[in-house]
Amino acid sequence: MDFKSYVLKKAVEAKEGARVIARASSEQKNNALLIMADALKKKAEELQRENKKDLAEAKKKGLTKAMIDRLTLTVQRIDEMSQGLIDIAGLPDPVGEITRMWQRPNGMTIGKMRVPLGVIGIIYESRPNVTADATALCLKAGNAVILRGGSEAIHSNRAIVKILRHVAKKQGIHEGVITFLDKTDRKAVMEMLKLEGIIDVIIPRGGEGLIRAVTENSRIPVLKHYKGICHVFVDRDADLNMAEEICFNAKVQRPGTCNAMETMLVDEKVAKKFLPAITKRLKKAKVKMKGCARTKRIIASVSEAKAEDFHNEYVDLILNIKVVRDIDAAMDHIAEYSSAHTETIVTDDYGKAMRFLREVDSSSVFVNLSTRFSDGFQFGLGAEMGISTDKIHARGPMGLEELTCTKFIGLGNGQIRT
Amino acid sequence: MDFKSYVLKKAVEAKEGARVIARASSEQKNNALLIMADALKKKAEELQRENKKDLAEAKKKGLTKAMIDRLTLTVQRIDEMSQGLIDIAGLPDPVGEITRMWQRPNGMTIGKMRVPLGVIGIIYESRPNVTADATALCLKAGNAVILRGGSEAIHSNRAIVKILRHVAKKQGIHEGVITFLDKTDRKAVMEMLKLEGIIDVIIPRGGEGLIRAVTENSRIPVLKHYKGICHVFVDRDADLNMAEEICFNAKVQRPGTCNAMETMLVDEKVAKKFLPAITKRLKKAKVKMKGCARTKRIIASVSEAKAEDFHNEYVDLILNIKVVRDIDAAMDHIAEYSSAHTETIVTDDYGKAMRFLREVDSSSVFVNLSTRFSDGFQFGLGAEMGISTDKIHARGPMGLEELTCTKFIGLGNGQIRT
Repeated sequence: MDFKSYVLKKAVEAKEGARVIARASSEQKNNALLIMADALKKKAEELQRENKKDLAEAKKKGLTKAMIDRLTLTVQRIDEMSQGLIDIAGLPDPVGEITRMWQRPNGMTIGKMRVPLGVIGIIYESRPNVTADATALCLKAGNAVILRGGSEAIHSNRAIVKILRHVAKKQGIHEGVITFLDKTDRKAVMEMLKLEGIIDVIIPRGGEGLIRAVTENSRIPVLKHYKGICHVFVDRDADLNMAEEICFNAKVQRPGTCNAMETMLVDEKVAKKFLPAITKRLKKAKVKMKGCARTKRIIASVSEAKAEDFHNEYVDLILNIKVVRDIDAAMDHIAEYSSAHTETIVTDDYGKAMRFLREVDSSSVFVNLSTRFSDGFQFGLGAEMGISTDKIHARGPMGLEELTCTKFIGLGNGQIRT
Repeated sequence: MDFKSYVLKKAVEAKEGARVIARASSEQKNNALLIMADALKKKAEELQRENKKDLAEAKKKGLTKAMIDRLTLTVQRIDEMSQGLIDIAGLPDPVGEITRMWQRPNGMTIGKMRVPLGVIGIIYESRPNVTADATALCLKAGNAVILRGGSEAIHSNRAIVKILRHVAKKQGIHEGVITFLDKTDRKAVMEMLKLEGIIDVIIPRGGEGLIRAVTENSRIPVLKHYKGICHVFVDRDADLNMAEEICFNAKVQRPGTCNAMETMLVDEKVAKKFLPAITKRLKKAKVKMKGCARTKRIIASVSEAKAEDFHNEYVDLILNIKVVRDIDAAMDHIAEYSSAHTETIVTDDYGKAMRFLREVDSSSVFVNLSTRFSDGFQFGLGAEMGISTDKIHARGPMGLEELTCTKFIGLGNGQIRT
């Protein structure tokens, strides 16, 4: 079968599944998730056996140690994957929730009801646990999922899907709800992106190259997460001890994440007081610092930051530092360089805190908090499908609610228009 | 200047405007809208003079009478356009609304705040009042708009934009907030669709051909309104008098609209009782009826409906009639043929009403109401940017809220992640 026919056939199965899962009760969905969680643990050996095939391939291809690590399914990771499904089963079901109802002058009642999106296509790379996480989130929100993982994890993904589909079938859930594209060729992705009317949304999870390719070629709406170039602005009215703790945490606690700080903006009025202490501490933590000319005048040992550095997502122990005139200059810098992920102001001034909250156009905007809190679990959403830096449909961490939409409902007793 | 440079320059102006209008106070926006409303009325003569140029062109090109009518700016229509702006000024400002806030165990407060989308590109045809309506809605929701109207209304649109921009400038609102593409070549649209990162969303308002072309070529998210193939299902437990009123209203009250009924589904248990009366009345109203084989057995005078008829949006006094086994058959038919616009069930049975509400996957789903209520004004949204039949971001009539998104905000007092 050619790619086109193969992908179409799979997508139609998913569409059939979507109609069924949209109507499933919370109980039925939760039961299935709990049994899936159990099955993953019970089949841990089988999963690891299949995972070893991927690992052997990876070594042959000379993948980096970090990539091989992300690919590896240890017993602990299988347990975590299983626990993730249990957690999702425990979350409230968003489907059918009526978010608002109001009465109209003619007596009819109009409202908004949360409904599933339909068929969600996920295009992802390496980590096989995404297969289970994404499936569970989509299923709980009443959607069918089409999974297209990377070739490097094909054996692991195939094994996980086999287990999940087996449970689905036994639980009377249409198997199309968990549809797996067993062709990792890029052409299969291109065919997916044409299936407007069958697939309702595409979520690419991976590098910027993948996301750009998907966006440029898709006729289907795409929910995307570009890079995280997060800023902390230390205002002149900041508690400088608090600012130091927040900046240190935002950079050092886990530098490889998208919500780590990449650029620290410091108000000129406090730069001389603030910079020596924080840079000393960052240096001790082996953070490589690049500063603007004014930063260098205060801390001679930092290297020079070039304009393009401020566009970089380092995801590493590297930090840009810039001294700015005031909050307006800080917000101008953010408007120009931010990737609209997460920004924080540290200040004790009420007015500036409120201005920053309202005016900074990023998916998460904080006052006196580490940027590292920008995360579905930390926010209390219970789970996360990724972090949208888009402005359409979802902005910021995407939980179950973001995998639904609202339709209008109307209750009447025979009203007609005159 | 070539199309590419021209469109880019205009879009960058809009982007600059977007940053300014996002921060504008409700008072400033409302004042501007009221002064614009006044200016449109005062300049009615100028508008009509320019409009006459379009009308002369239209006659030369041999446009249909209906098209010329839609293009015409009468004094009454200018008054209505002006009143529309006053109405939008009176609506609550969605920007800055905090829709929800909650506390996390570490003491931080997380919430969601409504924010503008940014730059909205509108691609539309014929009716020049869209220029003022769309501008007012975008502006009120804190967005900049890029207007690209059709060539047939270029003089009228240009004159309206000139008035609106003049007021904006005098009111200290960045003129980029109202950006007009004064090139009606299709190439200008194609260039717009590539400006990902500058334009945040595209809303095409026009025929299916336009919408498909935009969807296929856009790298920017598109909010689209395809056709309205709306259904009314008359259940066996319906109050048949109510069903007759609703069906008649849904088809006849204004057949040229997207929320008019195109197909009437009748439960086999009541078909013999229901069809004679309603078809007699529809016939009197000059509705041309096409029926399935079972309908024809009851009402011999209807012509035969072919399978493809059920895919038609007639927007005319034509109606498909189908006798179905039960509610499940009705919902199956809707799932296959509906354009996901609006469907109604007429029933007195509670269980079936609830099933229909929940299970029918359309943007508006009604019980015992005419489909003609599917409209932003009727719903009480105060205004309408169009009706989305999409599932992403907005579903159903789009008001001010749908021209915003929510970002996450976090209020802390120094929390860091451990």
